[in-house]
Amino acid sequence: MTARFCITLDDVRSAAIRIQDSIIRTPVVSSPLINDLLHTEVFFKCENLQHIGAFKARGACNAVFSLTAEEAAAGVVTHSSGNHAAALARAASLRNIAAHIVMPHDSAAVKISAVRGFGVEPTFCEPTAESRQATAEQVMADTGATFVHPYNDAGVIAGQGTAAVELFEDVARLDAVIVPVGGGGLLSGSLVALKALKPGIKVFAAEPKWADDAFRSLVSGRIESPTRYDTIADGLRTPLGSLTFPIIQNLVDEILTVDEDSIRRATAAMLQMGKLLVEPSGAVPLAVLMQHGEPFRGQRVGVIVSGGNVDPQTLQEILREAALR
Amino acid sequence: MTARFCITLDDVRSAAIRIQDSIIRTPVVSSPLINDLLHTEVFFKCENLQHIGAFKARGACNAVFSLTAEEAAAGVVTHSSGNHAAALARAASLRNIAAHIVMPHDSAAVKISAVRGFGVEPTFCEPTAESRQATAEQVMADTGATFVHPYNDAGVIAGQGTAAVELFEDVARLDAVIVPVGGGGLLSGSLVALKALKPGIKVFAAEPKWADDAFRSLVSGRIESPTRYDTIADGLRTPLGSLTFPIIQNLVDEILTVDEDSIRRATAAMLQMGKLLVEPSGAVPLAVLMQHGEPFRGQRVGVIVSGGNVDPQTLQEILREAALR
Repeated sequence: MTARFCITLDDVRSAAIRIQDSIIRTPVVSSPLINDLLHTEVFFKCENLQHIGAFKARGACNAVFSLTAEEAAAGVVTHSSGNHAAALARAASLRNIAAHIVMPHDSAAVKISAVRGFGVEPTFCEPTAESRQATAEQVMADTGATFVHPYNDAGVIAGQGTAAVELFEDVARLDAVIVPVGGGGLLSGSLVALKALKPGIKVFAAEPKWADDAFRSLVSGRIESPTRYDTIADGLRTPLGSLTFPIIQNLVDEILTVDEDSIRRATAAMLQMGKLLVEPSGAVPLAVLMQHGEPFRGQRVGVIVSGGNVDPQTLQEILREAALR
Repeated sequence: MTARFCITLDDVRSAAIRIQDSIIRTPVVSSPLINDLLHTEVFFKCENLQHIGAFKARGACNAVFSLTAEEAAAGVVTHSSGNHAAALARAASLRNIAAHIVMPHDSAAVKISAVRGFGVEPTFCEPTAESRQATAEQVMADTGATFVHPYNDAGVIAGQGTAAVELFEDVARLDAVIVPVGGGGLLSGSLVALKALKPGIKVFAAEPKWADDAFRSLVSGRIESPTRYDTIADGLRTPLGSLTFPIIQNLVDEILTVDEDSIRRATAAMLQMGKLLVEPSGAVPLAVLMQHGEPFRGQRVGVIVSGGNVDPQTLQEILREAALR
């Protein structure tokens, strides 16, 4: 079934072995309060408790650890100001190779220091897509480093799929799994793994209405771009890639979109009821259950909580709103 | 060794079996960021992810499930405005018996609704110790209900000890465990269990300086009262009990006290670095590691995170401070 895609379940299984000593087997957590609220048994796969606070640690490790010795010697490069930047810096430091992380010079201080925390000085560029691209290409030309895309990379996709395999192993009789979708690395890796492990399982994507490019891509049959970049779920503002789109197009059961208010309420509920700090992008699946929960009632639903890196200002804002309800 | 105390390890083991279908086997979580900060491997036993958001669910279930059918028919009563109130209401509802929860009429709305969430209408009293006591005694006289003390009760203590047993089972080669101390139910249950399971293990109590009555009790050799009631760790403002004090006096390695600033920083660190919402009382052991961490460096240290019920205002305040650092 998955032969026409860039990865298979075997690639995910190989990734799991390759990265097992470098990632955390994160716990699966349930919240009695959230279950009661939704009349659904929800199992949160807590990638907010992963290294660097996000599932991105998995894909970056798999990509870096899969390089030949010769490739590795020349280092790796990416452009990202998000979790992939820290994940790639960490993976490279674990293999003791150079990482070139191209970031806009106006990136948040916390994101710059996350990269520096792994001994990598970011390569700064102008805050435009053109400058980012040109700077990364210059680094590649100068160093021969391998470009590791945040999601449109078979090694990255296989690595991200390992979270879904662990969820599947740890929770019996799952009816459905809901995965957030941005560029589609986590979603496509999860789809390949879960649909091979249990063909009858439903896998849904969760997407902000304000970044519904994946939803529109399924409708139009080609990769659509986001039309706005202001959803609070800042990890999901990216378009699908040429490798992730065909997997999603063929295997996803449905893409469910949610409004901003639901995402904020879900982030607050994860904290106040679930006792877990989750970034808004990671709360989007719970927002789906809060906004479109009826079909899931009485079911056992896995949710991949993608990460927990939220800046204190955003968190305060969400809490302030939550306290007023 | 523990024969002279109100419980033994066997009582904790029996409690574990009695309550196993009614409590969550909570995960043990580590935070790479916190470990790096402290140069210590810290294993957080996440009772903030327990039913009612605190370890109190364990002791209340054990006490209620241990009642004879005749005792149970007359119901249970306690006075508490904290986690024990919700825990006892829940335990009684699971056994389908009456619970009388005596609370001051000015209790926080969220605490009242936590009790009502288990189908129990609180019995309100005046906000004084005398009224609380008199009201509870009146309920006992009227109904024959069994009083279940929040901590000075052998069944409660045995139930609380089950968290430490799970921690011990789930983490190999623990050097030490740090437990917060208020009334001493969690601490004394943990001490009896851990010192019997592994006599060489160090067990430390963590206590706010502003509620250092347990520390002073060890010095004086008798139960001392708190002298102030304003620590942010509001679950730890209570004196030891006649059953918990002898256990602590004989078995604890040391009581380590921390200042308010450390507790606030630890609560913020649990959230921002550990991605877990923890009530200030539950962050007091981490505050110990932040303020008195030197002797623990290089060790494997278990921490019982007692609970995660923090009101949004307190949380915002802590976050605001954390963001300014």
